[in-house]
Amino acid sequence: MFYSLDLLGTIAFAVSGTLTAIHKKFDPFGVFIIAFATAVGGGTLRDVLIGRTPVGWMLDLNYVYAIIGATIFAIIIRKKINYLSTSLFLFDTIGLGIFTIIGTEIGVQQDLHPIICVALGVVSATFGGVIRDILCNEIPVIFHKEIYASACIVGAITFLALSTFNVPVNINYIITSLIVILIRLISVKFKLSLPTFIADTKG
Amino acid sequence: MFYSLDLLGTIAFAVSGTLTAIHKKFDPFGVFIIAFATAVGGGTLRDVLIGRTPVGWMLDLNYVYAIIGATIFAIIIRKKINYLSTSLFLFDTIGLGIFTIIGTEIGVQQDLHPIICVALGVVSATFGGVIRDILCNEIPVIFHKEIYASACIVGAITFLALSTFNVPVNINYIITSLIVILIRLISVKFKLSLPTFIADTKG
Amino acid sequence: MFYSLDLLGTIAFAVSGTLTAIHKKFDPFGVFIIAFATAVGGGTLRDVLIGRTPVGWMLDLNYVYAIIGATIFAIIIRKKINYLSTSLFLFDTIGLGIFTIIGTEIGVQQDLHPIICVALGVVSATFGGVIRDILCNEIPVIFHKEIYASACIVGAITFLALSTFNVPVNINYIITSLIVILIRLISVKFKLSLPTFIADTKG
Repeated sequence: MFYSLDLLGTIAFAVSGTLTAIHKKFDPFGVFIIAFATAVGGGTLRDVLIGRTPVGWMLDLNYVYAIIGATIFAIIIRKKINYLSTSLFLFDTIGLGIFTIIGTEIGVQQDLHPIICVALGVVSATFGGVIRDILCNEIPVIFHKEIYASACIVGAITFLALSTFNVPVNINYIITSLIVILIRLISVKFKLSLPTFIADTKG
Repeated sequence: MFYSLDLLGTIAFAVSGTLTAIHKKFDPFGVFIIAFATAVGGGTLRDVLIGRTPVGWMLDLNYVYAIIGATIFAIIIRKKINYLSTSLFLFDTIGLGIFTIIGTEIGVQQDLHPIICVALGVVSATFGGVIRDILCNEIPVIFHKEIYASACIVGAITFLALSTFNVPVNINYIITSLIVILIRLISVKFKLSLPTFIADTKG
Repeated sequence: MFYSLDLLGTIAFAVSGTLTAIHKKFDPFGVFIIAFATAVGGGTLRDVLIGRTPVGWMLDLNYVYAIIGATIFAIIIRKKINYLSTSLFLFDTIGLGIFTIIGTEIGVQQDLHPIICVALGVVSATFGGVIRDILCNEIPVIFHKEIYASACIVGAITFLALSTFNVPVNINYIITSLIVILIRLISVKFKLSLPTFIADTKG
């Protein structure tokens, strides 16, 4: 079940990348690269930083197939996607929860400090979107909009805390992803976002 | 011969990076960094993704010398470069063919799945240009212009297919690079490019 | 002493990243990511390129604590930061000197060619700023403004030269950092910068 949720998250991220790239008028190759980078970018950066190479998607082709399928699907239904945007948001949010857990857990497996495990969870979940935005020459949306990464941070800390108390791993997965998903749903529902700082007016 | 073609490709990519950076009014350090990143960026990303470190150019200084030489050469002849632009295009196209083969072959050596080998061929050949464009704060040109990456994909698949049929490696090199170069020449000659998608007008 | 200078450099880079991100109106998460990337980006890229993973800051939490502290500090005093900008410049310059030495030395430890060691010194010292600028969707400032990377190149070469003559490592550290700092101070004081090239007016 966990593995299929992981693929679901990958698909959601690929769809979101595809739609962004179509909007930018990229050609099919460009669209596919953006879809791919959005879907696996976070996990790839995580793997490169800890030296877990060849990176994940090179060793499990199911991710590649899922992304190719999702990209073609998103291209075909692109004109109806506004009807589906709630599903897309839900998929993306599920992906966020799952990728946070996977990244955090890999940090634990590598015996890294809890703070670094949280960082790896956040990187896994959010840097696909950052890489997508950089490739599209945009300021990464997660740096200035909505509560997104914060949900991952809370999720990663929850996951580590429950692990410490020996909560069975399946239950831990469910609780942690639900927390990430809930924070995200509430923040979008009530249009919550982190405040920004007022810069020096003299500078 | 293959090795010197590889250096020729490196030189071509370095020249193209130099001209881009001069156009952006970068200082000599900036120009050199862009030339370097364009020339070795694709191979470097490939090496990092599969854990082949220290990355290639750190272990064979000839690449570094070739890039330094090409950058200085391009700076000197920059005002005459439009007379030479056909040569530049030819060099770049040769580089494209060679880098595709090298990337694909390294994937095979690492026992990776054929699809991943194709991906590594494309990354090696095209991501130098992507990194150049990102460092120059532009949308990567290969995402929305001309047939470029598609030529690499066809080349990489050809290379793998011919390897399967035990075609001698030298002949395989020649056929594959010729295919990449031919596709590229034809697409530029006839101004072919991939179609883009029409996005949802309602969204 | 050397280690604490290293932390001082990290803090200076984190402060500079924080101020840039606040200026861009990023939210607290975005500000922290930019601070972090500016502070450790150069060393991280160096480590990834040579396969020294998990990368440095994952194994020594003092860097993480220093960056968190520096970011909070910079957020609090952001309105007074123009009064402190000389200190910030000094910190940043010290960081530049120290990071150049660290990067060069790591190259030597890995038995890499002197030219590659110089490159690693420059990457360590300057690519935090490059990554900061890319994440903020700006053209990297070091490619077109002031003498910055050039100071690192001179410093790295000095460091290697003095090592060859068996100058004691502590004295080498001091001389090299002073040279980098001096070049930087002089170039800012007299507003020196590298000339740019005049591009072809016909092209």
